Amino acid sequence: MNPFLDPENIAGKTLAPGVTAKVAWGEKLMLSLVSLEPDAVVATHSHPHEQMGLMVSGTMELTIAGETRILSPSEMYHVPGGVPHSAKGGRDGAVALDAFSPPREEYR
Amino acid sequence: MNPFLDPENIAGKTLAPGVTAKVAWGEKLMLSLVSLEPDAVVATHSHPHEQMGLMVSGTMELTIAGETRILSPSEMYHVPGGVPHSAKGGRDGAVALDAFSPPREEYR
Repeated sequence: MNPFLDPENIAGKTLAPGVTAKVAWGEKLMLSLVSLEPDAVVATHSHPHEQMGLMVSGTMELTIAGETRILSPSEMYHVPGGVPHSAKGGRDGAVALDAFSPPREEYR
Repeated sequence: MNPFLDPENIAGKTLAPGVTAKVAWGEKLMLSLVSLEPDAVVATHSHPHEQMGLMVSGTMELTIAGETRILSPSEMYHVPGGVPHSAKGGRDGAVALDAFSPPREEYR
């Protein structure tokens, strides 16, 4: 197994219009490097998997359990399993790194 | 619980000389936003926890199981549990986001 993963060599997975993820798989962990175009929306959803993330660039409006914040780079967030959440890219779009445990097998 | 975490409000944990982490805790996941000063070293170590990470800024020389790469922003990596690894900040230092599962209780 190659422990080094360049997103340029990973096919993008479209999560929603204007929302693309580059996914890296572990056993207990999965990383998803998500790019949102300006104003692109990830509609409210939930999953049993725990999710934690980091804003990498741009800004993103993130709503977790009904609470909304506009996040800037270096801010982190935590979505416990089963908690509804949604996201919207800022005016310049956004890149965020999501970590999930367990991996989301439906992403394969 | 506040699902939004600003690293500016998290006390830094010194992992090694010139290496500081801002840690965010979940149940199955832990995030560690690590800053390495130029040439700062995380000596070879291993832990049973699975680790996956993303380069955020700067460059970092990362060795996993004896294989060394110089990583640039957006590159990801995977350290299975028990695998020896080490890191060294590049000439301008580095910021990387590490995700662990399970959380590393010794970081508390």
